[in-house]
Amino acid sequence: MPHFDTIAFDADDTLWHSERYYAQTQTEFVKLLAHYRDEEYTRAHLYEVESRNIQHFGYGVKGFALSMIESAVELTDGLVSGNDIKAIIALAREMLDADIELLNGVGETIATLAQSHRLMVITKGDLLDQEKKIQRSGLGKYFYSIEIVSEKTRETYARLLAEHAIEPPRFFMVGNSLRSDILPILGLGGSAAYVPYEITWQHETAEPPVSQPGFYQLGHVGQLPALLEQLER
Amino acid sequence: MPHFDTIAFDADDTLWHSERYYAQTQTEFVKLLAHYRDEEYTRAHLYEVESRNIQHFGYGVKGFALSMIESAVELTDGLVSGNDIKAIIALAREMLDADIELLNGVGETIATLAQSHRLMVITKGDLLDQEKKIQRSGLGKYFYSIEIVSEKTRETYARLLAEHAIEPPRFFMVGNSLRSDILPILGLGGSAAYVPYEITWQHETAEPPVSQPGFYQLGHVGQLPALLEQLER
Repeated sequence: MPHFDTIAFDADDTLWHSERYYAQTQTEFVKLLAHYRDEEYTRAHLYEVESRNIQHFGYGVKGFALSMIESAVELTDGLVSGNDIKAIIALAREMLDADIELLNGVGETIATLAQSHRLMVITKGDLLDQEKKIQRSGLGKYFYSIEIVSEKTRETYARLLAEHAIEPPRFFMVGNSLRSDILPILGLGGSAAYVPYEITWQHETAEPPVSQPGFYQLGHVGQLPALLEQLER
Repeated sequence: MPHFDTIAFDADDTLWHSERYYAQTQTEFVKLLAHYRDEEYTRAHLYEVESRNIQHFGYGVKGFALSMIESAVELTDGLVSGNDIKAIIALAREMLDADIELLNGVGETIATLAQSHRLMVITKGDLLDQEKKIQRSGLGKYFYSIEIVSEKTRETYARLLAEHAIEPPRFFMVGNSLRSDILPILGLGGSAAYVPYEITWQHETAEPPVSQPGFYQLGHVGQLPALLEQLER
């Protein structure tokens, strides 16, 4: 019998590529403003605007688009052209319509684990955007519950575990953000596998808690079934 | 014993004012562009941009802000100034930070009904924005569940009722949109009270199904306890 009732997955950059699209869009943004400001300055300014807007706009593409537009106006002292603004909105729409590219090993792993465990998605971001991505990923049918939340704090997870009647020791979370996916779960007494993505957003960085009970680090999601088998033996 | 297990409420323009802020913001938007286009043309164009963007951006203030910006660029043939764009983003932030004004009778009605029924909120919009509004409204403690969804179709309600193990005949929905709050519930065999708001967004209009079983229309939410008492006698 499995030791864990529920295996929950973060979505962006855990199941499929996401940060890559943000990075590409940022590069387009920098290019668009290249005749006003140098690259480094533009990147730093956008990050600053994004950070101060998170409390108003939350996570996701729409807030990111509004921050790019605001940053463009500020960086150009109001001289940014209407066409540049339109180009930024078009970039956001492209992000929302981008193909879903599953990370290596994800398709097989999810299909395999769904046979032995109850699987969940717990993700931040814009509601409609995340719903559409799960739908387009083709993985929706493997998850008994999909939770889209505005913040991934210990309180968020405590509420979700209570709602789904899951005991923390029987809960296993998988994600690419130590701050959002791993540390809150360990704090509640659950287990978690940290699967770093190739790029980590500045906002999400933290130190791996290598000596904490329940903490595991994997190179890719495909290693998860073997880890669980070992833990549940 | 109550006949209904659960009374669910729409939030915007059912529990508190919302469309009013959209209308005010639209008026500011029209003023901002008054030296480019006449009012009627601007309003019609904004509605057109909003409608085509709903599928990409979903409901809520952030998508509305992006549509205003896009509309401003198009209406001015790209000549809109950076400062006008900043003013539009500031309008969006003001909407997100606006005080919550409960509609007449809502505070007492919710407090009263919470003693005899399980209460829920089912609302569309941006996740973070809706969560913050429920928190600021002071009503959060009366609701056993708050569901923020991207669309309010019959399928959405069927899924929520199944998740919460509610039989449709024991479900009562209250809202100001026939299309989103009332018709899908009647279609499922539930009951619903339509409480029209002073302004209805063009996108949400429909004909009241006055002869359909389970349909009730009220002048304000304060009339709900009396209606339920009568139905449950």
